[in-house]
Amino acid sequence: MTPLHGLRIIECASFVAAPSACMTLAQLGADVIRVDPIGGAADYRRWPVAPSGTSLYWTALNRGKRSVAVNMRSDEGRELVTALVAEAGILVDNVVGRRWMSYENLSARRADLIHLHLQGHADGRPAVDYTVNAEVGVPTITGRESDAAPVNHVLPAWDLVTGMTVTTGVLAALHERTATGQGAYIEVALADVATAGVANLGWLGEARLRGAERPKHGNHVYGSFGTDFETADGERVMVVALTEHQWHALRKVTGTEDVFSALEPALNVDLNQEADRYRVRETIAAILRPWFAARPLPVVAEDLNSARVLWGRYRGMPELVDDPSPVLSTVDQPGIGEVPSARSPLRWGGEYGGTASAPGLGEHTETVLSDVLGLSTTEIARLHDAGVVASGEA
Amino acid sequence: MTPLHGLRIIECASFVAAPSACMTLAQLGADVIRVDPIGGAADYRRWPVAPSGTSLYWTALNRGKRSVAVNMRSDEGRELVTALVAEAGILVDNVVGRRWMSYENLSARRADLIHLHLQGHADGRPAVDYTVNAEVGVPTITGRESDAAPVNHVLPAWDLVTGMTVTTGVLAALHERTATGQGAYIEVALADVATAGVANLGWLGEARLRGAERPKHGNHVYGSFGTDFETADGERVMVVALTEHQWHALRKVTGTEDVFSALEPALNVDLNQEADRYRVRETIAAILRPWFAARPLPVVAEDLNSARVLWGRYRGMPELVDDPSPVLSTVDQPGIGEVPSARSPLRWGGEYGGTASAPGLGEHTETVLSDVLGLSTTEIARLHDAGVVASGEA
Repeated sequence: MTPLHGLRIIECASFVAAPSACMTLAQLGADVIRVDPIGGAADYRRWPVAPSGTSLYWTALNRGKRSVAVNMRSDEGRELVTALVAEAGILVDNVVGRRWMSYENLSARRADLIHLHLQGHADGRPAVDYTVNAEVGVPTITGRESDAAPVNHVLPAWDLVTGMTVTTGVLAALHERTATGQGAYIEVALADVATAGVANLGWLGEARLRGAERPKHGNHVYGSFGTDFETADGERVMVVALTEHQWHALRKVTGTEDVFSALEPALNVDLNQEADRYRVRETIAAILRPWFAARPLPVVAEDLNSARVLWGRYRGMPELVDDPSPVLSTVDQPGIGEVPSARSPLRWGGEYGGTASAPGLGEHTETVLSDVLGLSTTEIARLHDAGVVASGEA
Repeated sequence: MTPLHGLRIIECASFVAAPSACMTLAQLGADVIRVDPIGGAADYRRWPVAPSGTSLYWTALNRGKRSVAVNMRSDEGRELVTALVAEAGILVDNVVGRRWMSYENLSARRADLIHLHLQGHADGRPAVDYTVNAEVGVPTITGRESDAAPVNHVLPAWDLVTGMTVTTGVLAALHERTATGQGAYIEVALADVATAGVANLGWLGEARLRGAERPKHGNHVYGSFGTDFETADGERVMVVALTEHQWHALRKVTGTEDVFSALEPALNVDLNQEADRYRVRETIAAILRPWFAARPLPVVAEDLNSARVLWGRYRGMPELVDDPSPVLSTVDQPGIGEVPSARSPLRWGGEYGGTASAPGLGEHTETVLSDVLGLSTTEIARLHDAGVVASGEA
């Protein structure tokens, strides 16, 4: 599972989006070299952290990469990074205000360079997932109808979507370069990914037609039937009936077929239509709730599975760790110990790829300068002594 | 902006993930042919819908594609789809239980086929975004500390992440095929994308170390300082201070520097450390709140921007439509009229690409059978009369 074997990518980025992109490319076989300032970038100590202070976040997002630490405020440091980019031919960055790292400067050194520059807003203003999500309107429609205030979701979803948009852009440019010899300068803004995301779901088209906001609807699935139920033993399940088949399976297993048949003429709805299921969602949920409340989770699970109902159980993250999916493995991470670590979810010929630990900051400074740039031991030692590069955390 | 010009992709999929993937590939220049059953797949009428019944969701997720409608329960229909896949050489599908559409069968007709198969769970069990999100633990840590029940977020985030994971897989396989001539069978499960997603943020590593769930924390940003504030005119803003620079900008503009300097020894914290900002987040928010409450949004906005504070305003989706970002355009969509429509957020050489409307179901059946498979008008008419294919909604 190394379709990108032979590819080399320089990453000058931090936080979630670009690092997760480059980690994905590393999982697919690319040699990814993350270049950081000496001492680390702003994400190096981000929470969650282990008792030692080692960041679980940073180490999870930078697995399988090589790490080089360079003082990019020095001319020599900038020249080293420029040379690495020119050698590798692919750069992913999310830095602001480094003129020497512009496509114009870098492509003068490597004509067919692929340079993907990640931004907050497309006009250069900064943004992070949490500010962008507020701006595109998702918290306003999240939560219960009685919640007056917006509800932020905790998942930095746009960061993750943007990460995979970055890999898509890099690989599309690579396809074109292979075919034509031409490089590319590609920009992508987190805010644009989020705006396009809500537009692509039809939500902006709806807002325009409606002329007003969609009301909040708690844990219901919009435009269909889906919501959560509590079981007799205090567990919770999310049950969804998008298709007519799923809806009939749910009615049958809960013994509510006659109730819903009688309800349809009474409410003047056709519950085979998902729009009508959405309209009377609270009534449907109220009719189904006692069935779940009367059964403990193991019985609910067996019955729903036998009936082929679409459902999932609410779990806490400690449970995911205790009952790991095959996409998870563990690695021995210095500073942390054995830690759950995901493989790429892309299976090649039925197989998940491997896992790897994250590098120590600057762990590969010397080997990269030697292997990629061909610098001598003496020269590397001089750069080290002059504070231009660092090995290890220095 | 057509790096994928010349590529042809067959899509046999529905709902969000795979259709958004193939739409992205179409935006990058590929000829994407979505093949549907006659009358449409299960997603064809999904909400939101226009008054005419045309789905804003379906048309938003299938823009720029060509549409072919085939009766895949007939031998002839299956043969036509098999022939299209063999001609195109790339297939993306999310269907369950179609043995004739297996990689084994299809690659017998096209040895270097790239076939990406999207699943719910990796073991074949069905799943959708809402069930998967429950299973990976995100709703359990979303919402206020006082919310006993899980809070679903409304954004189908895993669908969107999975869509871009699909494009990444297809393009990585394409790179390998160009280099070696070898095709690939790639599988990706929505549940694996979600599990890997929470693992990649360090959340599973944290759950393992903590041995318990992280508490809910409302609209706060985990491990740093970020939360929402209401302004004097009833607007809301999300304010974030991840870096020391952002934190000092926020203190300065709100005139709270001395307060926080006095607070540090009193609470025994160093607020230059984001972990400490997180620990006393409620106190920080309480100290900052009056500043926001005393100023209307225009003043808040100007002051925060001048001070280079990282913030965003909570907007509703109708506002996004009224103040469109350059990533948005409009298209004239039959059945709807003029509708907001996103370009690809990937800018190539500084330019957003174009936009396109969605096809009518089966709009391109005849031209595709003619152009791609070379069928004669007579043969196409016969297939049409026999109910093997349909043009338009039939």
